[in-house]
Amino acid sequence: MFTDRIYNFSSGPSILPLPVLEQAAAEMTNYRGSGMSVMEMSHRSKVYLTIFDEVKADLKRILAIPDTHEIIFMQGGATLQFSAVPLNLIGKTGKADYAVTGNFSNLAMKEAGKYGKASVACSSEDRNHTYIPAKENIIVSDDASYFYYCSNNTIYGTEWKYVPETKGIPLVCDMSSNILSAPVDVSRYGVIYAGVQKNMAPAGMAVVIIDKQLAGNELPVTPKLMSYKLMIESDSMNNTPPCYTIYMLGLVLKWLDAQGGLEGMSKLKAEKAKLLYDALDDSELFKGCAEKGSRSDMNVTFRTSGEELDEKFAKEAAAAGFENLKGHRSVGGLRASIYNAMPAEGVQKLALFMREFEMNNRS
Amino acid sequence: MFTDRIYNFSSGPSILPLPVLEQAAAEMTNYRGSGMSVMEMSHRSKVYLTIFDEVKADLKRILAIPDTHEIIFMQGGATLQFSAVPLNLIGKTGKADYAVTGNFSNLAMKEAGKYGKASVACSSEDRNHTYIPAKENIIVSDDASYFYYCSNNTIYGTEWKYVPETKGIPLVCDMSSNILSAPVDVSRYGVIYAGVQKNMAPAGMAVVIIDKQLAGNELPVTPKLMSYKLMIESDSMNNTPPCYTIYMLGLVLKWLDAQGGLEGMSKLKAEKAKLLYDALDDSELFKGCAEKGSRSDMNVTFRTSGEELDEKFAKEAAAAGFENLKGHRSVGGLRASIYNAMPAEGVQKLALFMREFEMNNRS
Repeated sequence: MFTDRIYNFSSGPSILPLPVLEQAAAEMTNYRGSGMSVMEMSHRSKVYLTIFDEVKADLKRILAIPDTHEIIFMQGGATLQFSAVPLNLIGKTGKADYAVTGNFSNLAMKEAGKYGKASVACSSEDRNHTYIPAKENIIVSDDASYFYYCSNNTIYGTEWKYVPETKGIPLVCDMSSNILSAPVDVSRYGVIYAGVQKNMAPAGMAVVIIDKQLAGNELPVTPKLMSYKLMIESDSMNNTPPCYTIYMLGLVLKWLDAQGGLEGMSKLKAEKAKLLYDALDDSELFKGCAEKGSRSDMNVTFRTSGEELDEKFAKEAAAAGFENLKGHRSVGGLRASIYNAMPAEGVQKLALFMREFEMNNRS
Repeated sequence: MFTDRIYNFSSGPSILPLPVLEQAAAEMTNYRGSGMSVMEMSHRSKVYLTIFDEVKADLKRILAIPDTHEIIFMQGGATLQFSAVPLNLIGKTGKADYAVTGNFSNLAMKEAGKYGKASVACSSEDRNHTYIPAKENIIVSDDASYFYYCSNNTIYGTEWKYVPETKGIPLVCDMSSNILSAPVDVSRYGVIYAGVQKNMAPAGMAVVIIDKQLAGNELPVTPKLMSYKLMIESDSMNNTPPCYTIYMLGLVLKWLDAQGGLEGMSKLKAEKAKLLYDALDDSELFKGCAEKGSRSDMNVTFRTSGEELDEKFAKEAAAAGFENLKGHRSVGGLRASIYNAMPAEGVQKLALFMREFEMNNRS
């Protein structure tokens, strides 16, 4: 693999499993004898609906989604959900609580403010979002329509290690960057959504898993296609869905099954994350950015002794086949995103490369 | 081609050029030595931005888009534009005029009614949308924020043969099903948009071409990602765009160049449409649904003597390798969608098959 494919540590769009890409290529001009590409299929044709239904069934089984909840596929990624969530849910009481633990939850809260009163339930801004607030520091209002949080913060490299207790207030979670990395108790959530371009599929879609009883309360100004109710009723086909992206998600789910499902992913991600965090903790040059106890298993953020050396590291790493290790432009530093599709081998080699770099760059 | 690939007359998602699919397959696991798939690239990486910028430049050149206008890529297809257009534009006067010539313009008008006063400027409902109203029958209000029409009606098989004159009122056009089929004077339009899944790319995106001076007047309730202004300012990258779909559009544009660009497409579509309309006009069994003078070069709607025979035709055609010839479920009958990527050969063979079918089914 190494001579042909690079190790891609991009935070998203990000690495996809090689067998998935190979299968997509093999099926590109003629999907299983249909005489056409999946890209060319009418979304209402039998051949496409067979694909579509299987993707939904696989996702339902893998995430153990209860019958109370429905899967919908929406366009616009996580960002359009920043609007869709309040448009559909805030009308109940006009209020919502947001846990602000990074850039994206902050943007989501600002967007909710257009449609109601969005309050900060907790924030990690005081220490530049390097940690996840403790349970006891979360304030949940009795009259919030929902409580919102982002379970993994790609930019800061932090991850929630617990599910917030909200005393009956529906829980809404942006799981864009850690969905499918471990089992989740879906029944605890009102809405789970995820932009697919990290652990699921190529960019261009959000998977939304919604407790059906929460649908149907959208504000009158809600754009038709953003109504959860309409999307449930039309089985995500009020208009043409992003058919090929859904097909790619299906291939990823089959691959995930073959890796032992969510249990397999959970074990693998723990191993991969430990490799990198151990390397950071053992190092005198590299330093992790997130506080221990809040470290993400998906996005490992770190730094060297300075910006110049960070730059040098990213550059030399790229030359050695480890790409996209620069941190997000808003925070700088370095970041290795190690989503499901990143093989353990890639992380082992990166850890080794970090040790070599440190030896060569002793001050 | 015939033994392997079928002739796909789907109204969308629809046929794509075979060389485009072959190239996508060949580049799937390693795009031109980058060591990764286009699906895996960070949208802000140099390698991806090179693709992105080239797609925009090619589209600008091919459609001769003036510097007054900007190209943006939005998710949600045409249906989300039904909302985006009034959210961004209707605020100016609170009113807009709609030419209702089919299902989609009707849906667009209904959606606009959520955000302002949407009036019928003309309608073809009296004859079940089988024609396009004449110039002199269009009523344009002096105080409309914009005038909206859909240049080709996929369901009814009608197409506008002229550009409405609106006395300075910005013209908004849904060109989803005939964009890139002929040259267009973009300077006459305030907004052109098109869901890409017919003549441009796989489903999951709309291309929006907007006169920049119209942006910036969105209603306060506009979801952030639906703001034309924000999309212009962020060059369609406020969030992760549907990167792979944009890449596919790029491949289609290169193919289109090789076919002689819009002049080539225009010539080809006229030839293909003539083949089918001549077959209909020469037939005693088949009958075109759209009135002469309003016939679409993209979607040819027709019928036999009855529903049962329509069904038999669609079934036998499919068995012979001509698929997706059933009419839209709302109107029944038959429909051959002959978008850019449908080779003339496919249409010739279909016309021949129709003649054979007629011989075998004389009453």
